[in-house]
Amino acid sequence: HGEHCRCEHVVYIDEEVAKLLQLKAQLGGEDGKHVFVLKTAKGTRDYNPKQMAIREKVFNTIIGCFKRHGAETIDTPVFELKETLTGKYGEDSKLIYDLKDQGGELLSLRYDLTVPFARYLAMNKITNIKRYHIAKVYRRDNPAMTRGRYREFYQCDFDIAGQYDPMIPDAECLKIVYEILSELDLGDFRIKVNDRRILDGMFAMCGVPDEKFRTICSTVDKLDKASWEDVKNEMVKEKGLSEGVADQIGEYVSMQGGMDLAERLLQDPKLSQSKQACAGLADMKQLFSYLQLFQVTDKVLFDLSLARGLDYYTGVIYEAVLSQMIQAPVVAEQNGALPGDEASVSVGSVAGGGRYDGLVGMFDPKGKKVPCVGVSIGIERIFSIMEQKAELLAEKVRTTETQVLVASAQKNLLEERLKLTTELWNAGIKAEVLYKKNPKLLTQLQHCEETGIPLVAILGEQELKDGVVKLRKVASREEVDVPREELVEELKRRTSKLP
Amino acid sequence: HGEHCRCEHVVYIDEEVAKLLQLKAQLGGEDGKHVFVLKTAKGTRDYNPKQMAIREKVFNTIIGCFKRHGAETIDTPVFELKETLTGKYGEDSKLIYDLKDQGGELLSLRYDLTVPFARYLAMNKITNIKRYHIAKVYRRDNPAMTRGRYREFYQCDFDIAGQYDPMIPDAECLKIVYEILSELDLGDFRIKVNDRRILDGMFAMCGVPDEKFRTICSTVDKLDKASWEDVKNEMVKEKGLSEGVADQIGEYVSMQGGMDLAERLLQDPKLSQSKQACAGLADMKQLFSYLQLFQVTDKVLFDLSLARGLDYYTGVIYEAVLSQMIQAPVVAEQNGALPGDEASVSVGSVAGGGRYDGLVGMFDPKGKKVPCVGVSIGIERIFSIMEQKAELLAEKVRTTETQVLVASAQKNLLEERLKLTTELWNAGIKAEVLYKKNPKLLTQLQHCEETGIPLVAILGEQELKDGVVKLRKVASREEVDVPREELVEELKRRTSKLP
Repeated sequence: HGEHCRCEHVVYIDEEVAKLLQLKAQLGGEDGKHVFVLKTAKGTRDYNPKQMAIREKVFNTIIGCFKRHGAETIDTPVFELKETLTGKYGEDSKLIYDLKDQGGELLSLRYDLTVPFARYLAMNKITNIKRYHIAKVYRRDNPAMTRGRYREFYQCDFDIAGQYDPMIPDAECLKIVYEILSELDLGDFRIKVNDRRILDGMFAMCGVPDEKFRTICSTVDKLDKASWEDVKNEMVKEKGLSEGVADQIGEYVSMQGGMDLAERLLQDPKLSQSKQACAGLADMKQLFSYLQLFQVTDKVLFDLSLARGLDYYTGVIYEAVLSQMIQAPVVAEQNGALPGDEASVSVGSVAGGGRYDGLVGMFDPKGKKVPCVGVSIGIERIFSIMEQKAELLAEKVRTTETQVLVASAQKNLLEERLKLTTELWNAGIKAEVLYKKNPKLLTQLQHCEETGIPLVAILGEQELKDGVVKLRKVASREEVDVPREELVEELKRRTSKLP
Repeated sequence: HGEHCRCEHVVYIDEEVAKLLQLKAQLGGEDGKHVFVLKTAKGTRDYNPKQMAIREKVFNTIIGCFKRHGAETIDTPVFELKETLTGKYGEDSKLIYDLKDQGGELLSLRYDLTVPFARYLAMNKITNIKRYHIAKVYRRDNPAMTRGRYREFYQCDFDIAGQYDPMIPDAECLKIVYEILSELDLGDFRIKVNDRRILDGMFAMCGVPDEKFRTICSTVDKLDKASWEDVKNEMVKEKGLSEGVADQIGEYVSMQGGMDLAERLLQDPKLSQSKQACAGLADMKQLFSYLQLFQVTDKVLFDLSLARGLDYYTGVIYEAVLSQMIQAPVVAEQNGALPGDEASVSVGSVAGGGRYDGLVGMFDPKGKKVPCVGVSIGIERIFSIMEQKAELLAEKVRTTETQVLVASAQKNLLEERLKLTTELWNAGIKAEVLYKKNPKLLTQLQHCEETGIPLVAILGEQELKDGVVKLRKVASREEVDVPREELVEELKRRTSKLP
């Protein structure tokens, strides 16, 4: 706890220093001249073209999966009325960015996509929808950018709202996580599943007082990073459980399995006394039967230690973890990890979610509930893994899609180059031309090498006279004369074979 | 002017009332119960799935064009250090959203994408790049949402930075506007072109004092909405020009043409005295020669009344206007139009931009300049036109891409439906299945009609026994039995023909 305080003070001092330096810069540097602070805001970053190319690839895979499952998409504003976010995030509310009161409404930047989604459903009286939403959210957290944790970061949410037969939409969410992680090729993974009702029933039967369920739940949530000894210690010394109660919990939370475990626990002398636990366990059995039909049980694990931080979950919860991290920088969050922070839940956690049947009702004037289940893909972590993978494999990431550069080896052919480029653009070919009147051929070929353009269409006096274009493959240097009127067809033929 | 003041007061009162009502709601409604204000922040909106589908289509066209021209893309944070935005927008700075000082740096939401782009170039010492950036920007403007003007809105910018031979990148920007507006099929359009140096030279030769160039420029900018009489009136009565000077300006700004006009003006006894004007006119000739090669001169008009509001333009400027608006709501901005507000420049204006060779230098510690030319597509206006078009034509906009619904006519076939759906998902087919144990066939067919799913794969006891699936075309109700092992191929064959 002392460690935490010290840490907060350090952050505070850092921020005050930054503010004073900024002020100083505004007043003018040493020489009295105005000096700009050339940086992005703390905890944020620009995406350069290479990062954008990777981001686009990841988004395409994920959105492709969402669309395969029939999802629509919506978008909400980056800020909400402050009031909309109030009382939804408990402790974490202090991390919300507020806008300055410049007259008008009091506004805050969105903290996640789930609360705006619930507000959207209630406001438009929508009772069923399957939607995804990919957008940036904002948290005044202590950033750890090398580990892929930022103050501005993407969330990528898929949710199914509506009153349906139990566990079918829940199973589809897990199927989606399975498909996305397989397609992104991030290595082996596990999807842990549990149910808030099983946890609550278990706590009750072990003798935890009702009012301590949530806080004990968040202590259990630390088991993926801390040892049982540390967790037990917190339960007993900080949260005031007796050793006996803690030990009983300890036995349960060490259990892992599949449908068999759910069946066994339904016979458990203690758990079977709890109506809640039994409901959760029966649903868990049902869930596994659907997961079998979806062919994903090889990666799914019923794990009683999975707790997840967010208060609003009411049923099934899950979290996907990569079995091994690709490299060092993305390591365990030692401290500062927030409960419920999708981007930082645990070692290698890359997706998480669950059922939240009460949230929409918090926005409805009459408290009308809309059952919801959803999953959030930890896309920032996936970006950093993909970036590091590209770097490790020394992959050449192309940042443009240009198929051909229109070039010339001789002088005074700018007009002819522009004319040919126009023909190509008009035919839908991705083409570039250098903005120089007389570029050297070498410069033009270098541009292709640097940016990965595979083909060059070379014009010269002779080619113009013959009505041909010299088409050169950059990689092999092979050249062939193509009749001008066949060039577009030839380029289409060649580029349809390209990756 | 008085009108403007009254208007500002009304806005102020509206905002104060909104704030008080929000406070009241927080304190509890009439019955003492906490009541939520269920709305989005003033001047913002949610995008529903239909709007998102249209947005996606527009983005795809525009991004496709940018990629055809070899552009990369970048992204920057939604907020910048307040200092980064200071001094870039003149008068309009009052419309910038600031974040609350919660400790740490002083931040503001981005006001456009051009200043963050210039900051990015200077910060990373990039001297040449061709990039696009599509993202939301924020202005505390008086919203006119029915006319497509919001406080949160998209900008869609394409810029070429770098030291190149004159007018080649400038011409490519115009080619891009031409391609995008043609492809989006928004009806006939014109692209007006002018040059700041021609305007400045003309002002100088007409006898406008140097310090009044910018303010007279913004008066000229009003010519697309106001009559010459009104504009002249403002020049003489408000800006203090003599009638004679105003009349000379009036003669020039009524001129429109093509390359011929540039040639004629190079011989103009007054303009030819100005070095600046001559440089601008020579470049205009050069520009038109490239535009001929790019085959776009049929829509481009050299128009001496085009001024554009933004201070930072240094050379060529341009603006695309739709010849006729599709319907009523999108009409002339009568007042409150901001200089430089891409989304509201003039009647039917859907794109604008120009050359700004000085902006990056404002961020470089040594003032090192990077010449830039760019264009911003007025995408919000395009969205509303497309939405209204879809409504007028009563087009059915699909919000999902689902190709087939897996259905059954009999009871107790949920497992079989889920199994078949899994087969389809695993084969990359976009498929849905209703989350009910025993849905009625009619309900399943209705879901297809409502969401536009073209095909239904129907399972029954008989089909299962025969190893087939009944494939039904929703539109024609034609049904055919397809062997189960051929279903994926058959679906791929049929859906590749679909629009």
